[in-house]
Amino acid sequence: MDRTVTSSAGTTSNRPALIGLDWGTSSLRGFLLDGSARILAERSNGHGIQNLPQPGAAGFDAALTLLCGDWLDTHPTLPVVAGGMVGSAQGWVEAPYVTTPADATTLADQAARVETAAGRQILIAPGVLHDPGTAIPDVMRGEEIQIAGALAENAGWARNACVAMPGTHSKWVQVADGRIAGFSTYMTGELFAVLKTHSLLGRLMPAGVDATPEDEEAAFAIGIRAAQSAGPGDLPHQLFATRTLGLTKRLPPEALAHYLSGLLIGHELRSGLALLAEMPAGTPLLLIGDPALCRRYNRGLAAFGTTPAAQLGNTAPRGLFQFAAAAGLLSSASATPSSIKSAP
Amino acid sequence: MDRTVTSSAGTTSNRPALIGLDWGTSSLRGFLLDGSARILAERSNGHGIQNLPQPGAAGFDAALTLLCGDWLDTHPTLPVVAGGMVGSAQGWVEAPYVTTPADATTLADQAARVETAAGRQILIAPGVLHDPGTAIPDVMRGEEIQIAGALAENAGWARNACVAMPGTHSKWVQVADGRIAGFSTYMTGELFAVLKTHSLLGRLMPAGVDATPEDEEAAFAIGIRAAQSAGPGDLPHQLFATRTLGLTKRLPPEALAHYLSGLLIGHELRSGLALLAEMPAGTPLLLIGDPALCRRYNRGLAAFGTTPAAQLGNTAPRGLFQFAAAAGLLSSASATPSSIKSAP
Repeated sequence: MDRTVTSSAGTTSNRPALIGLDWGTSSLRGFLLDGSARILAERSNGHGIQNLPQPGAAGFDAALTLLCGDWLDTHPTLPVVAGGMVGSAQGWVEAPYVTTPADATTLADQAARVETAAGRQILIAPGVLHDPGTAIPDVMRGEEIQIAGALAENAGWARNACVAMPGTHSKWVQVADGRIAGFSTYMTGELFAVLKTHSLLGRLMPAGVDATPEDEEAAFAIGIRAAQSAGPGDLPHQLFATRTLGLTKRLPPEALAHYLSGLLIGHELRSGLALLAEMPAGTPLLLIGDPALCRRYNRGLAAFGTTPAAQLGNTAPRGLFQFAAAAGLLSSASATPSSIKSAP
Repeated sequence: MDRTVTSSAGTTSNRPALIGLDWGTSSLRGFLLDGSARILAERSNGHGIQNLPQPGAAGFDAALTLLCGDWLDTHPTLPVVAGGMVGSAQGWVEAPYVTTPADATTLADQAARVETAAGRQILIAPGVLHDPGTAIPDVMRGEEIQIAGALAENAGWARNACVAMPGTHSKWVQVADGRIAGFSTYMTGELFAVLKTHSLLGRLMPAGVDATPEDEEAAFAIGIRAAQSAGPGDLPHQLFATRTLGLTKRLPPEALAHYLSGLLIGHELRSGLALLAEMPAGTPLLLIGDPALCRRYNRGLAAFGTTPAAQLGNTAPRGLFQFAAAAGLLSSASATPSSIKSAP
């Protein structure tokens, strides 16, 4: 994918100031940003760290060249930063976790560096560890960059916010005084996929048959209501109802997956909203994630009587910019004319 | 497997009175019982309803003949009863669910009948549906026979009891006035297996490496404690700690599965004990299941300050006897000399 963002040419703000890389497990996304964190161009490919074009460190080099070798050549002094799994133990170089509380400055202070075969420096952001000692520890890697981007959009959010990030491993993040103070990961998306594909629950679900919108909504709502009425420990029981609601013909087979979705999202919301409730009154709830998934979460939140203060798209580019700024890389950025906008 | 039970020969009680079949998804177990429900001989093979020696109804016939064709031939008038998945929609003949409250008489009144190719009648027990209307429905098939067997062992239990049956799909059953009044299924065993085999959580678990007893116990206890401290909805978060406890080296890789086990069992116990708490004070808790698994449950229960009133082995043979008696099949039982004990 290559998307070139058009804007009025020739102004200072159109000059590239940073190459930012959001490098995850299954994809690599690159952003060419100007000095105001505006996206001049963006690209992505499937060369996540588990799918590199060749093994070893050379694979990272090759993936980067494939994605944006022309950017690197055209702007030989432009700073390059990266966040995500590229900094994990299985990444290009390990950037060990920083501990909460953490913000862009913490990330920059403890960032790792790697050099490409061509001698280009890349600053790699660490992940964040939340280890309250008494409870079970938790980690994030990649979301901390998105958080930094979200907080940069609104001074109020930087003071206090609760950020919900639905996904395979959803995160609920408590932000206080502009820093990540604590967070919880929920395996919601992976649980849904694994149970649907590999457990007894999936056997009653027909492949390739969609529920009617009415059945889908009803099944999702039953799942949410089950979560709302759950006592501690009830989830392993309520999961089984994915089967019994089918056996008893309360729901048509094609709607059963939506009960499962509502149940799992409902449990996450119940626990996540308890984290929000621990925060100062009026703390805004922000939702960051895939729009279709966020629609499901919004339906669930409505059942809990809650509406997010804002729903954000991809805040990673802005977060990479904040990370680079905190590392002092942007003052020395070598801007070039905006002709890059027409690069392939 | 063929086990012939020895006892003093020649007494009336050694005469076969019933052939009972516990016919599940993955195995078929047969019991030759005397008029006092004592096991004279028992056998099993792998011909559960999903693994029959040939397709269709003939497969059930063939499996039965392989297991105990000699019993059927030697005792041509002995009644034959069966319980378990053999009465499901995928079984030999469907015995539709009876609704709670249910006991052996309810099962007998609504049993299904099937005839073998040789013309032998088999009475097949229905499963039980618990559908409180407001909540999600639940079903069992096979456990109702085990319950009937357990209650026959002690007059006090038949009045009130809470029966916990750990397994792939654990059941917690409320017994009142000798009948199954309600129950909940927990997908504990399947969740453990599916998450270990198919989710990210299994990736850190080394294959074929056992934890030390100390590490195993510590990891299991951390899981139980997490369940004890869980708020509603916390399980999808606490599951992720199977990973983070490894990443942070709080637990060695080979102990992570025991955290997962403790966590899932702990959640089941928390919810199941809430069912027990709904029952009259002093209601005994009975544990029925695989001894190794029951040991884990007993460790978990101890952490909750609870000890089962009794732990029972396989109560299915006794339950099949109760089912046959309720169906009036035992008065006409044609007993034969105890020479069957030496049958192959």
